[in-house]
Amino acid sequence: MKAFDKLQKSINQKNSILCIGLDSDLKKIPNSFEKSFNGLLEFNKCIIEATSDMAAAYKINFAFYEQYGSDGFDLLKQTFELIPNDIFTIADAKRGDIGNTSAAYSKAVFDFFKADSITVNPYMGFDSIEPFLEDKSNYVFLLALTSNSGSYDFQRLSSDGKFLYQHVIEKSTSRFTKENLGFVVGGTHAEELAEIRKQAQENCLLIPGVGAQGASISAIRKAIGSSLALINVSRAIIYPQLKGETDKLDFSVEVRKTASNFYKEMKFKQ
Amino acid sequence: MKAFDKLQKSINQKNSILCIGLDSDLKKIPNSFEKSFNGLLEFNKCIIEATSDMAAAYKINFAFYEQYGSDGFDLLKQTFELIPNDIFTIADAKRGDIGNTSAAYSKAVFDFFKADSITVNPYMGFDSIEPFLEDKSNYVFLLALTSNSGSYDFQRLSSDGKFLYQHVIEKSTSRFTKENLGFVVGGTHAEELAEIRKQAQENCLLIPGVGAQGASISAIRKAIGSSLALINVSRAIIYPQLKGETDKLDFSVEVRKTASNFYKEMKFKQ
Repeated sequence: MKAFDKLQKSINQKNSILCIGLDSDLKKIPNSFEKSFNGLLEFNKCIIEATSDMAAAYKINFAFYEQYGSDGFDLLKQTFELIPNDIFTIADAKRGDIGNTSAAYSKAVFDFFKADSITVNPYMGFDSIEPFLEDKSNYVFLLALTSNSGSYDFQRLSSDGKFLYQHVIEKSTSRFTKENLGFVVGGTHAEELAEIRKQAQENCLLIPGVGAQGASISAIRKAIGSSLALINVSRAIIYPQLKGETDKLDFSVEVRKTASNFYKEMKFKQ
Repeated sequence: MKAFDKLQKSINQKNSILCIGLDSDLKKIPNSFEKSFNGLLEFNKCIIEATSDMAAAYKINFAFYEQYGSDGFDLLKQTFELIPNDIFTIADAKRGDIGNTSAAYSKAVFDFFKADSITVNPYMGFDSIEPFLEDKSNYVFLLALTSNSGSYDFQRLSSDGKFLYQHVIEKSTSRFTKENLGFVVGGTHAEELAEIRKQAQENCLLIPGVGAQGASISAIRKAIGSSLALINVSRAIIYPQLKGETDKLDFSVEVRKTASNFYKEMKFKQ
């Protein structure tokens, strides 16, 4: 199945645009989990089981696994395997390099990890993006306007009356179809999000910034209406505030409770 | 030792600005090597041993290892360990993400792989770069003007009379010191290289594009004079043309011969 079809199906079946980010970190997992790679895998399993009926997608942030080297890469692979087959997966790896190198990254993400999609950095241009889409069933989320304060450093440089991120969107939508290309747009920029939604009406938007980064869900929903999008929440769901002595079941209950609160605000058809 | 000091020492001791890129690929190694991860490691060992008296630095392209998943990450680690301690190493990983994620990538590259430096993509701005330099002994090569044709897509968008890559250089040199920051500038753009050299006189330039990508060494040398730089050659050195039946020794001899031809053109003090 093409990744884009799976994405739409996953959103429709769950009636959800909630994407859960597995930014899992040994230093942050609750005490009820063993401080080991097995413990971290169990932590991920617990989150996935507690949320798989609400999540349209899981986004796996490669950095948090790479920090443990090859053990981390093993864990990354095992985490991908824990995700039910019908749920869309995003390799949040922000790769991008010259052609033969991007082709090797593509092999890692799509062949080894068997992700459905990857986040890609546009700086190096189209020949750095194309290798990820050589297989037309793959899907790329291109960084456009990111959620962090650093997005003001270069992404908003103005050229010919348009910001860099607008050039990225304009040029790439004319080169790739909506079936292969979406954009990362930080929920922290609600106004620009509405404009981007108009500029790229049919491409899926992956919207981080909710939760720890403080973006407003209602402002995001107002900007995107009922268009194709995924709103990502990572830390606010996977690290719920636990009080006193708790076990894994308490953790799971709390994750499910928090996720369900987000889910209610992230129905696809409101 | 600070990475920057090691870089200068390595260049001075070898009187060389030659950087060798270990873009090692199972599909491309000669038949005299086993088509296995052990074979690939032996291939790297052979190249390092044949060139370590001429190379000021080795650049290891993460993609080529990541494509094999966790085995590849093991191989990457073992490859870093093969490089003599006094030679500068570059993790060519082109990372960059929001703060806490870049911090995790930094942990992977500097703590796990123990690289001296990393290539970083500037698109996400300064708060995506800073975590790599939280430890002031680290060194970052920021992508400025890359060697590929895609460098014409966004890097040359003009804003306030300057190209995007010029803004990247200007803004980042005012924020980071030469002891922490260098730039990646493709040797395929000799004219711009001369301008960049003037703009960022003291930052080390990492110059890819020689060899398979066709940049002219003499044009590069003219542009950079005897300033601080590394010229990278990957494929042209590690995949020499071998004729007929050859064994590992023939391969090693050919690698050394090719590298020495490059070395002659890449003396630091000419």
